[in-house]
Amino acid sequence: MLKEYLKNVKDFHPLIHNITNYVTVNDVANILLACGASPIMADELEEVEEITSICNGLNINIGTLNSRTIPAMLAAGKKAKELGHALLLDPVGAGASRLRTDTALKLMENIQFDVIRGNISEIKTLAKCGGHTKGVDADTADKIQEDNLIQAILFIQTLAEETGSIIAVTGAIDIVADKESAYVIQNGRPEMGGITGTGCQLSALITAFLAANKEHSLEATAAAVTVMGIAGEVGWNHMQPEDGNSTYRNRIIDAVYHMNGETLEKMAKIRKINTKERICKL
Amino acid sequence: MLKEYLKNVKDFHPLIHNITNYVTVNDVANILLACGASPIMADELEEVEEITSICNGLNINIGTLNSRTIPAMLAAGKKAKELGHALLLDPVGAGASRLRTDTALKLMENIQFDVIRGNISEIKTLAKCGGHTKGVDADTADKIQEDNLIQAILFIQTLAEETGSIIAVTGAIDIVADKESAYVIQNGRPEMGGITGTGCQLSALITAFLAANKEHSLEATAAAVTVMGIAGEVGWNHMQPEDGNSTYRNRIIDAVYHMNGETLEKMAKIRKINTKERICKL
Amino acid sequence: MLKEYLKNVKDFHPLIHNITNYVTVNDVANILLACGASPIMADELEEVEEITSICNGLNINIGTLNSRTIPAMLAAGKKAKELGHALLLDPVGAGASRLRTDTALKLMENIQFDVIRGNISEIKTLAKCGGHTKGVDADTADKIQEDNLIQAILFIQTLAEETGSIIAVTGAIDIVADKESAYVIQNGRPEMGGITGTGCQLSALITAFLAANKEHSLEATAAAVTVMGIAGEVGWNHMQPEDGNSTYRNRIIDAVYHMNGETLEKMAKIRKINTKERICKL
Repeated sequence: MLKEYLKNVKDFHPLIHNITNYVTVNDVANILLACGASPIMADELEEVEEITSICNGLNINIGTLNSRTIPAMLAAGKKAKELGHALLLDPVGAGASRLRTDTALKLMENIQFDVIRGNISEIKTLAKCGGHTKGVDADTADKIQEDNLIQAILFIQTLAEETGSIIAVTGAIDIVADKESAYVIQNGRPEMGGITGTGCQLSALITAFLAANKEHSLEATAAAVTVMGIAGEVGWNHMQPEDGNSTYRNRIIDAVYHMNGETLEKMAKIRKINTKERICKL
Repeated sequence: MLKEYLKNVKDFHPLIHNITNYVTVNDVANILLACGASPIMADELEEVEEITSICNGLNINIGTLNSRTIPAMLAAGKKAKELGHALLLDPVGAGASRLRTDTALKLMENIQFDVIRGNISEIKTLAKCGGHTKGVDADTADKIQEDNLIQAILFIQTLAEETGSIIAVTGAIDIVADKESAYVIQNGRPEMGGITGTGCQLSALITAFLAANKEHSLEATAAAVTVMGIAGEVGWNHMQPEDGNSTYRNRIIDAVYHMNGETLEKMAKIRKINTKERICKL
Repeated sequence: MLKEYLKNVKDFHPLIHNITNYVTVNDVANILLACGASPIMADELEEVEEITSICNGLNINIGTLNSRTIPAMLAAGKKAKELGHALLLDPVGAGASRLRTDTALKLMENIQFDVIRGNISEIKTLAKCGGHTKGVDADTADKIQEDNLIQAILFIQTLAEETGSIIAVTGAIDIVADKESAYVIQNGRPEMGGITGTGCQLSALITAFLAANKEHSLEATAAAVTVMGIAGEVGWNHMQPEDGNSTYRNRIIDAVYHMNGETLEKMAKIRKINTKERICKL
């Protein structure tokens, strides 16, 4: 199944509109090209509706939001929704400032996102359950591990139910859930946290997978998360002793470029979990 | 001849002012350094005239234009023209939004550019001959191939005559033309399209070549296009099996860094075509 | 001693707030991660005080300053000072435009920086002793070499005394000085000048070292400068014949990632010079 979602991206070549931060934007563009999609970046209010109209998906990332781009995010999001495009929110740093938290919540109120992807601290902030964001990285106290995994899933599904969005939480263990089902993905490497922007890149990748697999949003999101994790493993395997985080950044994008259905199916560590319970405290 | 233009860049070390998008700006800076030029980026109205005054060329790229930077582009362009500096326009995404098309046309009305460089869809948009821009990439229907090459040249030369600028259209086959002559360049690799920003990088490179070869603008532009194409080939030759588009990006800039007159002359696939006819429909 | 300062960064994991240019921002983020720190970028007035409050240091870089970000720099700087955070100014291009010079001076008047780091032309501009900035690179006439080293140190210490800040001047020979003592560092490679942003990266690195070594600001600054220079040497040693400036960029960040106390102590070319004299002309 996973390989179908990847193949659809390569066959469909979705064009993804990104309103994203200027820190990781180049890697976001290159990972979209690596997976077979195309990127366009535009953040000016006057043009975003028009730009998003010619695209297949919209990836909104608040990593370096400002007073000029926030209205552009809202306008583009509304237009993309109206046109039935794939829609993702990456609430970078929600919880780190009132502006970020408020902007993320405002976007969620005004736009029905297909997917909201963040680290657990950001997601907890949006669920109003008191996450602790340390800058743009997840707080250690929030980390999802084997011993709190089921609790985390239940919590995430509560938010999924509240918002009607798929919630993708990435960290040592990744969870992708809607209100009914959850996928747990255990690919990836801890060293990915030593590169800026792997989260931003994944958000773009998910948007491409959503755009090319419109009838299977949950599975397509899980597939994109799995692709990123495997790329982290494959990229690591190609590291030389002197290579560090800067080269690793290239190696991961390169691995997405070479990703194929066979590697994906073979290396995927993904399982589905069905739950009934819901909790609002993690 | 080609090698002279390269040598002049390395000897003259032109300082190039770039008002460019935030997606590919780092690669633009590094390719300028790779060829022997120096970059400076400044996009604030209050300083752009002063900044451009200490430079030798100005590269205007509308890839992430906004209401703050458009007036800066106009002011910098007028000042650079007044001072006789090399001047290039890269109309990224012209045709994808009214703002981009209008801004490109407004810049062209107010500033006499030495070179306008884009893909064929962008160039068709500016010629008002109905190009179809799909985001920032050329539409497939517009692609220049052997069977429509002469038509394309005639069309491009019509725009060159209308604007008084050299038109550089890059794609599978590159064309550099003024109203009298055209160069056809067939270096490069299709995989270059899988990297974000090779077009933006080329625009910066052309600006450096123009600044260092002021009496030979057409030939210098053709030389820069050839350098970029050959760098794409040399870079590809250095790729390992696991390398993908992210590493390829580095390899191309690295190849510009090592480019010398001998490699350039040996690998160049460039020919000159003289035409009389003009057409306005492609 | 040097190795202690590095170890403290790795143990403390400082979170560094960067208000920096969009040209080199990705490399700035990755070098902070490489040394064991974490980056956050935020430049919107409405949130910068809040963001900087959760950080340990603030790195202000005026490389692509604009009317929106200058007030944010001032507000963040004042807040960071109030909280006793590490504070660095990188006056990119001071001297190249009135806006840059005025902004740097205004920041210096309103905020007591721990460190001001620039090339000799930028530093001369700020000392009102008539530096000649050619774009963002130091003017050849200003270069510090063996024959004007002592003069340069005396000049830099005059500025250190005037401002109360540590002054770090980087070039072929690096000088780090407060009013009492000066360190001369002769690590690094000339090819580092062929990469965009090694200066910006160093500024971020220094801020992390300051934040993790608050009682030893001068020594921590000198240690960070030494780390960067050694990373330039180690990175160069890992270059293949076809590698150029783009790959070198990765190699340097990779070398910071692998830097350890032993390498640092073994390769450091650093000496301390005590002087009494002060001069205002270089």
